[in-house]
Amino acid sequence: MEIKSNILKYKPLGIYTQNENVVYMREDCHVCISEGFEALTRIRVSNLTTSVIASLHIITSDVLGLGEIGLSRIAAKKLKVSDGETLYVSHLEPIESLSYVRAKIYNQKLDYKAYKEIITDIIEGDYSNIHLSAFITACAGDRMDIDEISNLTKAMIASGKQLDWNKEIVVDKHCIGGLPGNRTTPIIVAITAAYGLTMPKTSSRAITSPAGTADTMEVLTNVTLSGKEIKRVVNQEGGCLVWGGSAQLSPADDILIKVEKALDIDSEGQLIASVLSKKAAAGSTHVVIDIPVGETAKVRSEEAAKKLKEHMETVGKAVGLQIKVVITDGCQPVGRGIGPNLEAIDLLDVLQNKGDAPKDLKERALLLAGNLLELSEKVETGKGMETAKELLESGKAYQKFEAICRAQGRFSKTLIAPFQFEMYAPKQGVIKKIDNRKIAKLAKLSGAPQSKLAGIWMNVHLGDKIEKGQLLFTLYAESTGELNYAMEYYNNHDDIITIN
Amino acid sequence: MEIKSNILKYKPLGIYTQNENVVYMREDCHVCISEGFEALTRIRVSNLTTSVIASLHIITSDVLGLGEIGLSRIAAKKLKVSDGETLYVSHLEPIESLSYVRAKIYNQKLDYKAYKEIITDIIEGDYSNIHLSAFITACAGDRMDIDEISNLTKAMIASGKQLDWNKEIVVDKHCIGGLPGNRTTPIIVAITAAYGLTMPKTSSRAITSPAGTADTMEVLTNVTLSGKEIKRVVNQEGGCLVWGGSAQLSPADDILIKVEKALDIDSEGQLIASVLSKKAAAGSTHVVIDIPVGETAKVRSEEAAKKLKEHMETVGKAVGLQIKVVITDGCQPVGRGIGPNLEAIDLLDVLQNKGDAPKDLKERALLLAGNLLELSEKVETGKGMETAKELLESGKAYQKFEAICRAQGRFSKTLIAPFQFEMYAPKQGVIKKIDNRKIAKLAKLSGAPQSKLAGIWMNVHLGDKIEKGQLLFTLYAESTGELNYAMEYYNNHDDIITIN
Repeated sequence: MEIKSNILKYKPLGIYTQNENVVYMREDCHVCISEGFEALTRIRVSNLTTSVIASLHIITSDVLGLGEIGLSRIAAKKLKVSDGETLYVSHLEPIESLSYVRAKIYNQKLDYKAYKEIITDIIEGDYSNIHLSAFITACAGDRMDIDEISNLTKAMIASGKQLDWNKEIVVDKHCIGGLPGNRTTPIIVAITAAYGLTMPKTSSRAITSPAGTADTMEVLTNVTLSGKEIKRVVNQEGGCLVWGGSAQLSPADDILIKVEKALDIDSEGQLIASVLSKKAAAGSTHVVIDIPVGETAKVRSEEAAKKLKEHMETVGKAVGLQIKVVITDGCQPVGRGIGPNLEAIDLLDVLQNKGDAPKDLKERALLLAGNLLELSEKVETGKGMETAKELLESGKAYQKFEAICRAQGRFSKTLIAPFQFEMYAPKQGVIKKIDNRKIAKLAKLSGAPQSKLAGIWMNVHLGDKIEKGQLLFTLYAESTGELNYAMEYYNNHDDIITIN
Repeated sequence: MEIKSNILKYKPLGIYTQNENVVYMREDCHVCISEGFEALTRIRVSNLTTSVIASLHIITSDVLGLGEIGLSRIAAKKLKVSDGETLYVSHLEPIESLSYVRAKIYNQKLDYKAYKEIITDIIEGDYSNIHLSAFITACAGDRMDIDEISNLTKAMIASGKQLDWNKEIVVDKHCIGGLPGNRTTPIIVAITAAYGLTMPKTSSRAITSPAGTADTMEVLTNVTLSGKEIKRVVNQEGGCLVWGGSAQLSPADDILIKVEKALDIDSEGQLIASVLSKKAAAGSTHVVIDIPVGETAKVRSEEAAKKLKEHMETVGKAVGLQIKVVITDGCQPVGRGIGPNLEAIDLLDVLQNKGDAPKDLKERALLLAGNLLELSEKVETGKGMETAKELLESGKAYQKFEAICRAQGRFSKTLIAPFQFEMYAPKQGVIKKIDNRKIAKLAKLSGAPQSKLAGIWMNVHLGDKIEKGQLLFTLYAESTGELNYAMEYYNNHDDIITIN
């Protein structure tokens, strides 16, 4: 129902709210009065070509003139609205898919159709953050069974673009995060592409960690590529290392991830759907998944890892993917760098076979690359790791990595953050425990991943014998505010690195 | 940690966002840059006396000047900030109680301490709508056991003011909503206060219904009274009919209810905690609870009602309340009016013993008032209803009602909405079904409860024999937009009133 009298003129206010569609109208606006709108009412705003749903913020000053309407940047962008353009405003018709969300809150099992409608409405921007948070929470804590996870995954695949590489085998890998510094992906892509396999790697940005692969790669090259550009890079080099969001693969995932980040949760069902929908939509056929297990990793017990492995494999089969899950040690951070720029330094050192390159990062990358070569059936079982090592140590992997970066638009050098602070051991002893979550928190407080140069450079590992006053790690930050804040957190928590 | 360089000058922008604390800062603001803030970052804003947590919206226009900061109206009100005042901005320290919310999402049982910390932080305004929605969802769908509901209830009681009436017996009642037009409370207060009992009634506004008791009473009198004013009214008249939120009883409840409204859910645990915390904080000792049961009522089966009854009684005992639960028929709306003003007309007709007063509303009010008189042990078991009837039919209850309204500041007349539309039966037959939820939805679309005059006047009940073209109901609205929208909803749903 479009009421032609509900016409207002667009005035740009220049307010940026991330993913939230906000519409601004005056308190004494004739539309507010005739339609009975009040603050936070969800309303539909349309121009001649399209429409958005937005939450109303009421203006009681002269920021807007009579007959004017404002929009947050994201809503203005979706409408492609220009200064002075006429906009129509109307009541929101009921969002039918919210009844499925309510059913899920009340523990009902949802089918494919329900998940499809929910995901479609989420991508349309019809859900407020309150609705998104309720959907994520209702699906968390083992509240989805395998059928539901499969149906959610299928719905997410169907909701976006799906790439087709015209190849029988397209490989991919994923790590269930939780381990700071565990940046194996770029090394694995370099190795498998150097071998001749196709590995069009799309990665997410950090959800709850100080860096995702996309954040780290962005230090070295462009990661925001169009589908066409990705195709060109992969056709040319056999692999790519891009941010998945820009390719519009499983676009609901990017919206859900922002809310999961605010809640600092990453539940099993959403995790499996998120990972596998991206893989399937990216046209992958064979995928190795790394699950690090440790007391302070994302997966805390061998038992939970085995359950996740089983669910991953079952859902994988349901959506047509060959999955191999590798359970690895997750007791401490990997390598030395934590944070986009510092992790980029580590992975370049490994690819360049430098003498001081972190051995643990190298070993993990070779293990996973070897498994991927074997899963593809191009390399004989038992020979995968050996083949991977040869490609890495011969420099072929580094050549391939540089070529991929250049094909993506640039191959930049790593940098050094302007603010640093060194933390020393308060006593002599042995490094008994390193809390992955608190180390990650510390790196995030220092500014990672938004501040690309921020993070932590670790100088110790579990089991190291250290002297009093020995360097434990260095904090890096792009602003003194963030540096101070991280230092304060460290000083208030004595269990981040435990010395016995 | 307060960084003195993070100083900005307050400029009023006049943006109203309901309960959401929003802070506005320029993209090129030195504080945003030095602190690494980005849109939707949660930050702490302080003046010399207090502070609030707010979500950042970034300004990229000249709405704010360099060195200036804006706040949404609610945040400005909490800080009591004046034009040009200096504000300090800092990073948000981690909100520790969110770890309990995450534990609840992952199905862990929370203790009193955890609920107390969550509720305290919610009242402080430390939770964003995303956090509130996750907390509500994680507690819904039978995810709280009786101990947890008791602990949440106790935490909510302790979080606000607690009234003390210096009386041995203070009575109260509550109805588990879901039945449009079921406005018995004012009649019951009038009867029990006329009898001589103390009934300081605090009611909520509508959560998911077209009118709460507070909305309806606001048509007739002031309902937003201070604790002191309530005390005066109750001392004088023995009863009151006010909005609970203004008395700061269980203040977390009002914040949670706004999010439940956006989600259109009202879960058992939150419902029990909400109802009983308000009762206990209001100083009540004996409470009758009405649970209407019907296919389209809030409680749909006798079995669910019995479970809720049991839980209510157990939690009641845990927090020191005498509870009597009465399960009633919830198959159709009660009385004729649905919406604040129209329900006020119905209850006045009952109190004034008018010939056409709705019998069903009268009978329900007498049943509950009778039970309350008996629960108080002032009236012999079996004599309650008779005593209540006498007080009503003698006009004593109406006298008391008028006296209470006048003590609260005014006794206003009901009005007639400016826009109306009559709906006629499309065929002859018998009224087979009336969908409470859809009738409520229809009344809400017409503008209730925000538009006090909006709603529905029912002309038929279940089992009525009707002719084709007979009047089914009249829609009332304060704007044509809302009237049209309600009409469209009615025309698109043929199962609101089913004629066989």
